[in-house]
Amino acid sequence: MADNGNSTTVTGRRRGGRSRHLDDAGANGAGQAASKPHYRHIVNTLPPVELLSGDEVEAIHRTSLTMLREIGIRVLNSEARDVFRKAGAEVSEDTMMVRLDDELVLASVSRAPSEIDLTVRGGTPYRIGGRNTIFSSVGGPANFSTLDDGRRPGTRAAFEDILKLGQSFEVIHMIGPSVEPMDIELRFRQLEVVRAEVMLTDKFPFVAARGPSPVADGLEIIRLARGFDEAEFHDTVSCFTVVNVNSPLQLDVPMCHGIMEFARRGQLVVLTPFTLAGAMAPVSVAGALAQQNAEALAGIALGQMVRPGAPAAYGGFTSNVDMRSGAPAFGTPEYVKAAMATGQLARKYGLPWRSSNANASNAPDAQAAYEAQMSIWGALLGGCNVLMHGAGWLEGGLTASLEKFIIDIEMLQMMAEVFQPLDCSTAELALDAVREVGPGGHYFGAAHTLERYASAFYEPLVSDWRNFENWRDAGSPPADVRANRIWKETLRTYEPPAMDPACREAVDAYVERRTAEGGAEPLT
Amino acid sequence: MADNGNSTTVTGRRRGGRSRHLDDAGANGAGQAASKPHYRHIVNTLPPVELLSGDEVEAIHRTSLTMLREIGIRVLNSEARDVFRKAGAEVSEDTMMVRLDDELVLASVSRAPSEIDLTVRGGTPYRIGGRNTIFSSVGGPANFSTLDDGRRPGTRAAFEDILKLGQSFEVIHMIGPSVEPMDIELRFRQLEVVRAEVMLTDKFPFVAARGPSPVADGLEIIRLARGFDEAEFHDTVSCFTVVNVNSPLQLDVPMCHGIMEFARRGQLVVLTPFTLAGAMAPVSVAGALAQQNAEALAGIALGQMVRPGAPAAYGGFTSNVDMRSGAPAFGTPEYVKAAMATGQLARKYGLPWRSSNANASNAPDAQAAYEAQMSIWGALLGGCNVLMHGAGWLEGGLTASLEKFIIDIEMLQMMAEVFQPLDCSTAELALDAVREVGPGGHYFGAAHTLERYASAFYEPLVSDWRNFENWRDAGSPPADVRANRIWKETLRTYEPPAMDPACREAVDAYVERRTAEGGAEPLT
Repeated sequence: MADNGNSTTVTGRRRGGRSRHLDDAGANGAGQAASKPHYRHIVNTLPPVELLSGDEVEAIHRTSLTMLREIGIRVLNSEARDVFRKAGAEVSEDTMMVRLDDELVLASVSRAPSEIDLTVRGGTPYRIGGRNTIFSSVGGPANFSTLDDGRRPGTRAAFEDILKLGQSFEVIHMIGPSVEPMDIELRFRQLEVVRAEVMLTDKFPFVAARGPSPVADGLEIIRLARGFDEAEFHDTVSCFTVVNVNSPLQLDVPMCHGIMEFARRGQLVVLTPFTLAGAMAPVSVAGALAQQNAEALAGIALGQMVRPGAPAAYGGFTSNVDMRSGAPAFGTPEYVKAAMATGQLARKYGLPWRSSNANASNAPDAQAAYEAQMSIWGALLGGCNVLMHGAGWLEGGLTASLEKFIIDIEMLQMMAEVFQPLDCSTAELALDAVREVGPGGHYFGAAHTLERYASAFYEPLVSDWRNFENWRDAGSPPADVRANRIWKETLRTYEPPAMDPACREAVDAYVERRTAEGGAEPLT
Repeated sequence: MADNGNSTTVTGRRRGGRSRHLDDAGANGAGQAASKPHYRHIVNTLPPVELLSGDEVEAIHRTSLTMLREIGIRVLNSEARDVFRKAGAEVSEDTMMVRLDDELVLASVSRAPSEIDLTVRGGTPYRIGGRNTIFSSVGGPANFSTLDDGRRPGTRAAFEDILKLGQSFEVIHMIGPSVEPMDIELRFRQLEVVRAEVMLTDKFPFVAARGPSPVADGLEIIRLARGFDEAEFHDTVSCFTVVNVNSPLQLDVPMCHGIMEFARRGQLVVLTPFTLAGAMAPVSVAGALAQQNAEALAGIALGQMVRPGAPAAYGGFTSNVDMRSGAPAFGTPEYVKAAMATGQLARKYGLPWRSSNANASNAPDAQAAYEAQMSIWGALLGGCNVLMHGAGWLEGGLTASLEKFIIDIEMLQMMAEVFQPLDCSTAELALDAVREVGPGGHYFGAAHTLERYASAFYEPLVSDWRNFENWRDAGSPPADVRANRIWKETLRTYEPPAMDPACREAVDAYVERRTAEGGAEPLT
């Protein structure tokens, strides 16, 4: 009897085994990736949740078009205003407002591809769009934290450690820009960041849209790392940027530059309005979604006006704030519903879409885990194609936690396993095994079990299934302490990806030259 | 820019508010329940996931019927064997094996109701079946734990505290039997446990199926607490039991008695095979599901043979073990898929079904939270009607944790909020608010915001959204420490439910008399 008051009999019998979690944590981490080829290409087999009716999706769509037509979006970049004007938008140079009629928006957006192959040095491309899904590591926090030393401003060493963790797990496909290396002078930062990405990983890399000079540096390093000439680079999606609209309804100068330059160079732009309901967007989730949709469509339209067919993804980041303090919240019920609804909008336009594994906890604790789970389920039930900040995000994105990184890897791997079909073939239905074991027996030694046990179930990375006594005698390590050991072991066994020596030399020579020239121009 | 490397600008602006989490935790707990009437009746608005094809569901169904027809189920209770024989089963008194043909099984099961009203003293009944869903508190662990004193064998005091917590949150509808009060002699335990349930709560109570004498005591206390005569009790579903099949394919003496006696008395039986894939069930999830289905159908059929139309629920508890140690695991990818598939089976038979908020962690940490979330999402996407162990389960059911109880309440409340529709009316689409605020503004002071902010979003119980500095200055309390404060405050402000004094006296008199008589007969 498992749960009616007699469960102690189950314990002694079934929970006495030794655990591997503490003595070979590293093998679980790095080793596991190699043995699970299905983490490389993930197809989301859960049907997307249709949270809203067709009429409701249409109402959000219509409202967002009305926003762009009647209110417009403020575009701070004059070149972008020119692009909009030439495409047929109504542009005021005085107010910098750009108004777009419905047909201009929809015709532009319709040119964006619905599926995109993201090419990488390390193997076949990752596809996004349809049911194809990829996961990225954390990007952007100014701080990082470990259980050992607490929270500190980002450093180059931490930045590189997080890249190495991303490289070590097959379930990470896309490299978020890790933690901001505050100890690298800003004018040299893009050079060092992008070089480290291509040297330490062979996943799909990120280039920050921080204005013309850093973008040129970042794209050139990507091109050199792949050994492409300009035409090849132009035709091969090799990196991405994220443009967070300065919500409500405003695109600033470097954002517009990023949209246009990535489109011209054939690289992926993830257009993500930062619509926190109650702060930068209406307090109602429906209103926040309408504004998100207006902003996303306007930004994607700009890219398509520059180069029809340029790779773009619709970013959904709508969440809510704590109305008592104004603090942003993530992984909330509102976040879940916004993600599901965003999926419906993105599918309406035939666009790949991006969500996030977000949480607002200050520690890699139970709150971090349950908020992250809410985010992950909302995003994946919404059918998202790119789950950004898949591993390592903490504290509403202000901190990259190395323990949270490992806990997230466990959660991502579990979702990838959920997507694996449940085999209902005759052999798996196991009638003969049931016959062999008979009433009151057990299956530990059955032939059916012995043939399958080594690969029957997901093997966890962090979860500790030892019985209480063994766990206590080992010092009662909670999940964050175990994750701490795992990231250290993963870094110890990290192996850099292969790279053509000529490409490596070209990247180094470029960075050296640009460093000698004084690095990038300041942000405009 | 939220997540492309410039997030610090967001922080200072939006995360500076004070938090209520530490200075008035109790008000969040007890107070919140009163202000959220939609937690009383929960309708799961997420469409159930059809994980398996119709053919695959049929294959599991057919395999389970073949198991019952060709292998049979061992029935240790002679009265139950008589019932099966009289209904048309092939029964061997030598082997105690009962074989059932397909039509007998399906005709019997078809008599069970598809929706059931669970009546309570405290208001309108809770309905199960269809999209109606209820959540129960923890039941059955031999141990309990708090952050203060660690893990200890169950006591009467802890048992009562956990009942009080269940009473204090509206999102808990059904009372699991809390922790086993090991300091109450076994022969008096049922008397004291059921009395405490009806005195300390007015939720739907549990009676353990531990043989004739304890069952008679339990049901009598429930009847007296409601002030029913025998006929009224018979026609009013007033309590439930859980029968965990002694898998594989075996029903023991008290289990059979429980099924038959609860059916005769018109009380709910939750028939739950304990099918851990790789241990008491085949190592393949499909095989474990087929065996689960065979066992559940056999047990439900027994109840329907005793009293057609008796209230019954299909229990799905299929999970897997760690194949290296044999330790049970919960909240795994296999658990999620088994829950979704179980929902398909239960819907095929038109039966309400029960799942669990399960995890195998030894502490209320990140593992406990992510495994619980996996379980909750799997169960609710599978459309379960009764989520048992909704709050407080830890360590694979060996421990009831008071901190986990509070963390679970947060997770259950969040799911109840996810089920609330996303209002896409014109007012909520907020076009006028977007017009009013304009590009680059914020919505904190907008009329649209002020009209809605007080109730716009879910207010968390445990989640701490203070900024890092405020959280750190308050001692960096992780989620379990905050939960510890909340359960203490909830107990401090606990109020017992109303109860008719005559009923109370009748219950006390009964317990007093039965105690004087020496309590219940030992288990057979």
